[in-house]
Amino acid sequence: MSEAGFQRARSAAAKQAREQAILDAARALGRRHGVRDVTLTDIAAAVGMHKSALLRYFETREQIFLELTAEGWRQWSADLCGDLTGRARATPAEVAGVVSGTLAARPMFCDLLAQAPLNLERNVSIESVRSFKLVTLGEVERIGRELHRLLGLTELQAVDMIATATGMAGALWQMATPGPRLRELYASDPRLAHAAVEVEPRLTRVLTAYLTGLTAETPAAT
Amino acid sequence: MSEAGFQRARSAAAKQAREQAILDAARALGRRHGVRDVTLTDIAAAVGMHKSALLRYFETREQIFLELTAEGWRQWSADLCGDLTGRARATPAEVAGVVSGTLAARPMFCDLLAQAPLNLERNVSIESVRSFKLVTLGEVERIGRELHRLLGLTELQAVDMIATATGMAGALWQMATPGPRLRELYASDPRLAHAAVEVEPRLTRVLTAYLTGLTAETPAAT
Repeated sequence: MSEAGFQRARSAAAKQAREQAILDAARALGRRHGVRDVTLTDIAAAVGMHKSALLRYFETREQIFLELTAEGWRQWSADLCGDLTGRARATPAEVAGVVSGTLAARPMFCDLLAQAPLNLERNVSIESVRSFKLVTLGEVERIGRELHRLLGLTELQAVDMIATATGMAGALWQMATPGPRLRELYASDPRLAHAAVEVEPRLTRVLTAYLTGLTAETPAAT
Repeated sequence: MSEAGFQRARSAAAKQAREQAILDAARALGRRHGVRDVTLTDIAAAVGMHKSALLRYFETREQIFLELTAEGWRQWSADLCGDLTGRARATPAEVAGVVSGTLAARPMFCDLLAQAPLNLERNVSIESVRSFKLVTLGEVERIGRELHRLLGLTELQAVDMIATATGMAGALWQMATPGPRLRELYASDPRLAHAAVEVEPRLTRVLTAYLTGLTAETPAAT
């Protein structure tokens, strides 16, 4: 490699290392405090940079978290499809259990799933949201192929199913993680005791009934 | 009525009129711009008050919108139950259609349904969130009775169903109302054309399959 080429490669590698350090810091803070409470200043402090330096790597706080949402989609889909491809057949309840279990195992991804359409997608450039959307569409297609193979879902049904699973995982996670004051209220007011929500059991029940209903309409592919 | 009693009644009526004017202004602004973009300063300006005067009536911006969310629950539930009580029997698809139709007819309520657990419930006093929760629990119970009568749903199934309908209405509304930049992207990039979401048809499909699956497990009450 020429001297100039080596310099370029070294600076590209340094840039990538910096970006990765920023994403790691944001991920750790988001896990600890919840995504809503993490500011750009917090992330910059955690990674030991000034805020203005951090903005050379990412457009906004929202772009950082949208990047982590895309990472979450890739990892969730890999886990889910890794499980599903290993099965020659599966019942609606089994598929529902794997989908719910792999989502509930990723609390920060559930948080991000609710934040993305409300906040994250609205505060980034059109190019950032385009590349985010292309990641999710690719993973939806991949998961959809497994849902078609195992339960005979059509493309539209698979898209609906994945939107339901991810939409409900996001909404339920927000309800299940209500902050200290609301948690205290649930614990102290017996009328509200059953307003507390657990993500995985409810998501499993809902998706099981939903897939049972879908496959009652559409017989599984043979 | 004594002079003092009359004064108290007049000032209570004036206070209520002021509160109502604030709620009306917030509702109109939220409908026009989406809840996320409406600030306390906007509401104060629309109602012709100083922000500090407005804070004598409501704790925070979030309390105003949580009040409107409670109002939305009451009105939606009244409409939905008004339709359902008029039916001697109904199929899962018919119930799903009424639930989706009455939700999709209330875009601002759908917006609020996503905002409430993410933002609104977290920035109000414990007493405000308690009275909000008691309103929603009351309406869930009322809707649940109709779901039991028509489809034989148990209490747990009814609570799951209402959480699914309102959770998905909130999530889908956010996806369906993506702001000008994202809308432009959907229109201009053919790979993303089908990423655009319509609330009512998808919600109807999902709830139909879900209720079909539930009632396949539980035969309708007779």
